[in-house]
Amino acid sequence: MSRRQNPNLARWRRRVAETGRRTAWLLAGLMLFAGYAPAAMPTIEQWGRYEITLPGPTNGNPFTDVRFAARFTQGDDAVEVPGFYDGDGRYCVRFMPGKPGIWKYRTEASAPALNGKTGEFTATQPSAQNHGPVRVAHTYHFAYADGTPYRELGTTCYVWQLQDEALQEQTLKTLAASPFNKLRFCVFPKRYAWNTNEPILYPYAGSAATTNWDFTRFNVKYFQHLERRVADLQRLGIEADVILFHPYDGGHWGFDRMPPEANDRYVRYVVARLAAYRNVWWSLANEWDFMKQKKESDFVHYGEMISQEDPCHHLLSIHNGAILFNDTLPWITHASIQNGAAVEDPGRAEMYRDVYRKPVVYDEVKYEGDIESRWGQLSAEEMVFRFWNGTVAGTYVGHGETYKSDDQILWWSKGGILKGRSPARLAFLKKVLDAAPAEGIEPLDKWQNPEYGGRAPDYYLVYLGKASPTNWEFRLPKLPPGTARLPAGGMKFTAEVLDTWNMTVTPVPGDFTLMKGTGYLNADKDGRSIPLPGRPYVAIRIKRVKE
Amino acid sequence: MSRRQNPNLARWRRRVAETGRRTAWLLAGLMLFAGYAPAAMPTIEQWGRYEITLPGPTNGNPFTDVRFAARFTQGDDAVEVPGFYDGDGRYCVRFMPGKPGIWKYRTEASAPALNGKTGEFTATQPSAQNHGPVRVAHTYHFAYADGTPYRELGTTCYVWQLQDEALQEQTLKTLAASPFNKLRFCVFPKRYAWNTNEPILYPYAGSAATTNWDFTRFNVKYFQHLERRVADLQRLGIEADVILFHPYDGGHWGFDRMPPEANDRYVRYVVARLAAYRNVWWSLANEWDFMKQKKESDFVHYGEMISQEDPCHHLLSIHNGAILFNDTLPWITHASIQNGAAVEDPGRAEMYRDVYRKPVVYDEVKYEGDIESRWGQLSAEEMVFRFWNGTVAGTYVGHGETYKSDDQILWWSKGGILKGRSPARLAFLKKVLDAAPAEGIEPLDKWQNPEYGGRAPDYYLVYLGKASPTNWEFRLPKLPPGTARLPAGGMKFTAEVLDTWNMTVTPVPGDFTLMKGTGYLNADKDGRSIPLPGRPYVAIRIKRVKE
Repeated sequence: MSRRQNPNLARWRRRVAETGRRTAWLLAGLMLFAGYAPAAMPTIEQWGRYEITLPGPTNGNPFTDVRFAARFTQGDDAVEVPGFYDGDGRYCVRFMPGKPGIWKYRTEASAPALNGKTGEFTATQPSAQNHGPVRVAHTYHFAYADGTPYRELGTTCYVWQLQDEALQEQTLKTLAASPFNKLRFCVFPKRYAWNTNEPILYPYAGSAATTNWDFTRFNVKYFQHLERRVADLQRLGIEADVILFHPYDGGHWGFDRMPPEANDRYVRYVVARLAAYRNVWWSLANEWDFMKQKKESDFVHYGEMISQEDPCHHLLSIHNGAILFNDTLPWITHASIQNGAAVEDPGRAEMYRDVYRKPVVYDEVKYEGDIESRWGQLSAEEMVFRFWNGTVAGTYVGHGETYKSDDQILWWSKGGILKGRSPARLAFLKKVLDAAPAEGIEPLDKWQNPEYGGRAPDYYLVYLGKASPTNWEFRLPKLPPGTARLPAGGMKFTAEVLDTWNMTVTPVPGDFTLMKGTGYLNADKDGRSIPLPGRPYVAIRIKRVKE
Repeated sequence: MSRRQNPNLARWRRRVAETGRRTAWLLAGLMLFAGYAPAAMPTIEQWGRYEITLPGPTNGNPFTDVRFAARFTQGDDAVEVPGFYDGDGRYCVRFMPGKPGIWKYRTEASAPALNGKTGEFTATQPSAQNHGPVRVAHTYHFAYADGTPYRELGTTCYVWQLQDEALQEQTLKTLAASPFNKLRFCVFPKRYAWNTNEPILYPYAGSAATTNWDFTRFNVKYFQHLERRVADLQRLGIEADVILFHPYDGGHWGFDRMPPEANDRYVRYVVARLAAYRNVWWSLANEWDFMKQKKESDFVHYGEMISQEDPCHHLLSIHNGAILFNDTLPWITHASIQNGAAVEDPGRAEMYRDVYRKPVVYDEVKYEGDIESRWGQLSAEEMVFRFWNGTVAGTYVGHGETYKSDDQILWWSKGGILKGRSPARLAFLKKVLDAAPAEGIEPLDKWQNPEYGGRAPDYYLVYLGKASPTNWEFRLPKLPPGTARLPAGGMKFTAEVLDTWNMTVTPVPGDFTLMKGTGYLNADKDGRSIPLPGRPYVAIRIKRVKE
């Protein structure tokens, strides 16, 4: 593993190098596009950000007094995009073109200076690293908008972007070298164990000393900074799972208990600013049920609001504490679940798939670490074990790390460096996932043999967990009644033994020919078995030989 | 256990004895009530059945040509009750009074002979065995309408009432001696493995030989018979979980693929006939997703229809095959779930509670038996084990039995006699449940120590499952954040060791005094443990000593 170049790390190096070359590239880009776009027409990649900035009123309160939006059209396609005030008399609207071609726009505003402005630009084909926003695919899985599979492998640094600049940069560097392709973090600052420092910025005008905030005036620097970090993640190929509300304020600043109209204004402002970033996911809340100042119906209100107002229709979920949200609601794109026990075995992990018929992301399954709280003391082995259980069950699992630290910097809250031993193994898992079928892994015998995941009859991943067998009889489950009862007799397969902890892949010599049996599983025609090392955490990868 | 009189058995003996005395009792009853009801006014118990029968048109098709209903009022309370045609010119409407007092009625019909008839009757206090219909109570549990707790313990005999008369009587006798207080069975006949005989009756006019049915004309004898059996179950204190649709027809008779208007007519007819039986529960379908002729939205339609048209608002659920229904829908009163693995441990069983926030009844968890199908070969030990897992998780589990039989009579399908060893142990469980808190058992530490069920701090049931410890350290979990963190230091408890397989209760000498600890569980102040027999299937029952 160590000799293969990590793709995130490559992107990180590119990002550092690019900073100094940006002006040159901009000129070169303009020259390049000039050949096939009208000379004066700006261009932007499909799924890039096209930004209109106009000067407008500065009197009164521009955040509340001025309505500003734009309508983008291409042929019959029309998209209404809300704008926002960015301070210093600047009004912006940002648009992520969902298809290439010439887009026209016209602004709509309550202030004459901002109203009825028109323009057009060309959305070009996306560049190689740009696959668009992530969408739900094949019911339980994800893919980028261009169809490229997205194998979710997330981690959590709740308020990494609100720590000092050096620590933020360190976090980005760590992420770049990690296997993670999603990061969960909060918009608002957090006050909780291991995180009692003040943030570098505050989201509202007002006084930190007296915690007297003007909820009608955003601190635009706070959100500009947030955007910069979302863009940094995008360059690293990491989705930003942006958490809008959380309870870890406890009234200290009061962002967890703003009046309803302030909450609405806040949600709209964040959507207007961030929706054009293609790597954004909306997480309505972390541990929604621990926010005693909000009712469940409040979250339904915010969810419906985002669902209607986000012109880009980003993924949208809500994360629970002890009480699950009703993730069957239509505006929820995937279940984002905290459960301390669900991925202790694949049979459990599968159960919420059956309920939701959406992707299930176990975003919090306890953390690798050694703090006193029992949710933060998983061994690295247990963390990796949980990922594999979730994987063969056709679900996704989230990483987090809570190793005690003299400097109070725990990855789970502030970022910094990873100290645990699970990330290297999760990189191994990621490699396995990247080579798995594009449609995603499905559980293949959920109530009987939950260790079988895959896409029958072409690909199987059998995870043996904590068992340490020295032998595995080659058998493949037929599919349940109502589906084709694959695999069929005569099919040929090859197998590999994956040591998921020691990160080795060992091909099994020869191949296996399936015998049609009368039971629920078919065996090899010669009754062949696969010798195993007698260690835990072994998986068997089986691929069909197409003849 | 064997020396205690089984309450169902007592009811059975009473029922047999009562048959000959019915006329005498009727007279005595009338005389008794005559003291405080107007002399000419009929009386019926609260939650009994008041039936109006009127002669009406016999020409045309009375099932489709005549609308007939009645409106029952008591003060401001008004209940619209649909009527039905019962053959031979008889039109009926049946009403279950939900409260005592004088009820008036007025019929409403499209036929003048049936329209505008009025009358009144007195609903008296219910008799000792009549607790009313079962309702949801305390979110996850059940109680009769009079508040008496109902501890669900069900079994399944899919088409017992369509077998020959002697077998039906045998089934009733077996049920009477059993611990079961709910029976799942189908309205329509079933054709499936171990059940390929024709039913004793058919639900429609037509020809069994040619399976040419007139879906506009019900066979009233079929439904009269069904009602008789529902009433028989009521006398035994057994709820009738009536399954309206099922796939085990496969087009043989075609009741699984009637046209939509026939399905609607059928649902309305069954509701009109059965809703006044207080022990009825509606199960929309068995394995709904295996009915390939119906869409999911069809079941939503029937569910909403019943929810609106059933004047008694009986419990209403739908049972799944491989695909869970959306049991969060508001008209579904409780989740009726088939899952072959969910009750393999209490941690799993709890998971669907969190999703649905309704009672979860695992109505099908595989069956005790020895047939070739893997869903029908649980050992008795495993069946009992599953019940206990479900119980401490705050859910309910269903029994079924599939022992091979030369006479093709398997309990699960036809009834008859029980051959397994689980029912005696389920009777033991029932006794434990009957002595448990009225509010029902809740899981107390779901993601960490799912073996703890109960109602803190007064009652705990700790199920140790397949582990065979010789010792159990006395420890009680604190409750999760956001709730009172009971139990507190200084509280006193007594304990009993329950051998759930050998059906013994052994008190532990002395008591235990809780020490307030800093962790997640509090221990005895002297660190006392409970000696255990070193056998599997042991539970510990802990009760608070109130001082």
